Amino acid sequence: MPTSPFKTEAILERPLTLAAAQLGPIARDATRAAVVARLVALLEQAAARGCRLVVFPEMALTTFFPRWHIDDEDEVTAFFETDMPNAAVAPLFDSAARLGIGFYLGYCEQVGSGEGRRRYNTAILVDAAGNIAGKYRKVHVPGNPVYDPALKLQHLEPWYFADGDLGFPVFDCLGARIGLLICNDRRWPEPWRVLALQGAELVLLGYNSPAQLPDNPRQNALRTEHHQLPMRAAAYQNGLWVVATAKAGHEEGCDMMGGSCVIAPSGEVVAISSTLGDELLVYTADLALTVEYKKFFDFAQYRRPVAYRLISERQGVGEPLDRAAWQKSLET
Amino acid sequence: MPTSPFKTEAILERPLTLAAAQLGPIARDATRAAVVARLVALLEQAAARGCRLVVFPEMALTTFFPRWHIDDEDEVTAFFETDMPNAAVAPLFDSAARLGIGFYLGYCEQVGSGEGRRRYNTAILVDAAGNIAGKYRKVHVPGNPVYDPALKLQHLEPWYFADGDLGFPVFDCLGARIGLLICNDRRWPEPWRVLALQGAELVLLGYNSPAQLPDNPRQNALRTEHHQLPMRAAAYQNGLWVVATAKAGHEEGCDMMGGSCVIAPSGEVVAISSTLGDELLVYTADLALTVEYKKFFDFAQYRRPVAYRLISERQGVGEPLDRAAWQKSLET
Repeated sequence: MPTSPFKTEAILERPLTLAAAQLGPIARDATRAAVVARLVALLEQAAARGCRLVVFPEMALTTFFPRWHIDDEDEVTAFFETDMPNAAVAPLFDSAARLGIGFYLGYCEQVGSGEGRRRYNTAILVDAAGNIAGKYRKVHVPGNPVYDPALKLQHLEPWYFADGDLGFPVFDCLGARIGLLICNDRRWPEPWRVLALQGAELVLLGYNSPAQLPDNPRQNALRTEHHQLPMRAAAYQNGLWVVATAKAGHEEGCDMMGGSCVIAPSGEVVAISSTLGDELLVYTADLALTVEYKKFFDFAQYRRPVAYRLISERQGVGEPLDRAAWQKSLET
Repeated sequence: MPTSPFKTEAILERPLTLAAAQLGPIARDATRAAVVARLVALLEQAAARGCRLVVFPEMALTTFFPRWHIDDEDEVTAFFETDMPNAAVAPLFDSAARLGIGFYLGYCEQVGSGEGRRRYNTAILVDAAGNIAGKYRKVHVPGNPVYDPALKLQHLEPWYFADGDLGFPVFDCLGARIGLLICNDRRWPEPWRVLALQGAELVLLGYNSPAQLPDNPRQNALRTEHHQLPMRAAAYQNGLWVVATAKAGHEEGCDMMGGSCVIAPSGEVVAISSTLGDELLVYTADLALTVEYKKFFDFAQYRRPVAYRLISERQGVGEPLDRAAWQKSLET
């Protein structure tokens, strides 16, 4: 593994060599076996390059089907996993355990059946022994619950997925305290803060994001900036590392963003992918760098939660609090 | 007022021509009269350039004295205003009313006397008729409450100032819903969100920030980035305009950052100061641009406050919530 003389593991205090395992497009009719073979190939490459942790994208086993309103229930069901692990992903789990590599995997999860059936946009964290160490279900499900003919780009995640119901948990794994987020979660400051208030040092995130927004064309030139900006701010404000991994490229007629990246607790993008295909982006993160920023912001000394109550008391925009209302809110 | 043919007020939907009125250094022994004369000169320039709102820095009437531990109580008291307006600032209020310009002014506020005396780092919003439309007292007071000989740079704000006790209010003024923040507040995501949950379209902020951090030298190269990053993310995530104004330059042996700026709801820095002295940075903001981003994030549809409770329940980092604790938290 070639490293700069200034960045060898030997001089890092708490090094963790990790990778964003970016995927190029997955066809609508791709088999699980074909996709899993691509994931295993990236894992093998990660092992050869000294990685201990690999981050696959959101919905890494299938095409991003919420771009369609699919009426064929059999086709929809086929995009979901009812067990994890299962026979189709066994080669991935087996390879990871054999290679001693942990991984983040995004997939579509189906729980129960009939009236009790629930579907989630899910990510799991698997430890270096091949055991599931943690699970997260996407809380910020973007888009519309129904097909809207007025929109040029459909994004029907709420039609397919229920809101995540596991909160924002953290997991101690691979020597780090790790949080999991998925795609759109990255644009909201709250999940990052909730993870940091539980001590998160490293947040893993997979995404499927259109490269252009034909319904908001003024934002097109800013897509990469709007992808990085909230994650960079969150890394800095919470003193944590971020690994964000894309499903990229031209998938079923839709151009998906690349730009898989590693972000340091300084808020700097320290590594970024250079293709729109299957690509392993390797970086050795020093977890000790979180300390400087966590100390700089010293939540216990400087946060003022009593003044933040509207964040958890309100969902949408409401009336301004007048002076009396603020006084009451701050005193009780 | 020269404007680009692509950015005349005529084609903006809700134009507001505003200015960051950056100040160069203020000496420890500067008189109020001398400082106020500088503010008035910037106001006159703002009027000539068509501004309706001017944003002065934090502590715009005095030097940034928290860099010293001052034992002479008379000298300390002289840095504070016990009334606002008062005779010393009357020329500023009179000029603004005469010119029909509103302004943000940061100053040191003393309330009461004896045991009941309180001192705050305060900002006011004055409307175009010269009336005080709103007041904010800084909530995130950075630095240390006591002199620490181990530090190369002292920052003793908590020794001088109590925490702000007015919450994060918004004010309807000059046709906009306006929030006020001060300096270090900009680095925390919570105040921005609390303002946005009350409909803020424009946030005004003054600051005094050292250009270098000799006690955190790795951050020195990132000072400007760390100044802009959280404000840019906040502008984007909350769909609002930001005007941030520096006290800049070499003040009493300390180099202060410049970089006064205007930030659009896109998160872009659309105007930035070019000196470290008294400088008027003028920009015509279209308040209507807030709509696109507020709609994109649609808090009422997409925020999930029940999952954000730790933000207002915890001050510092605490134990992770396990699955049962998350379930309980989300259900009650």
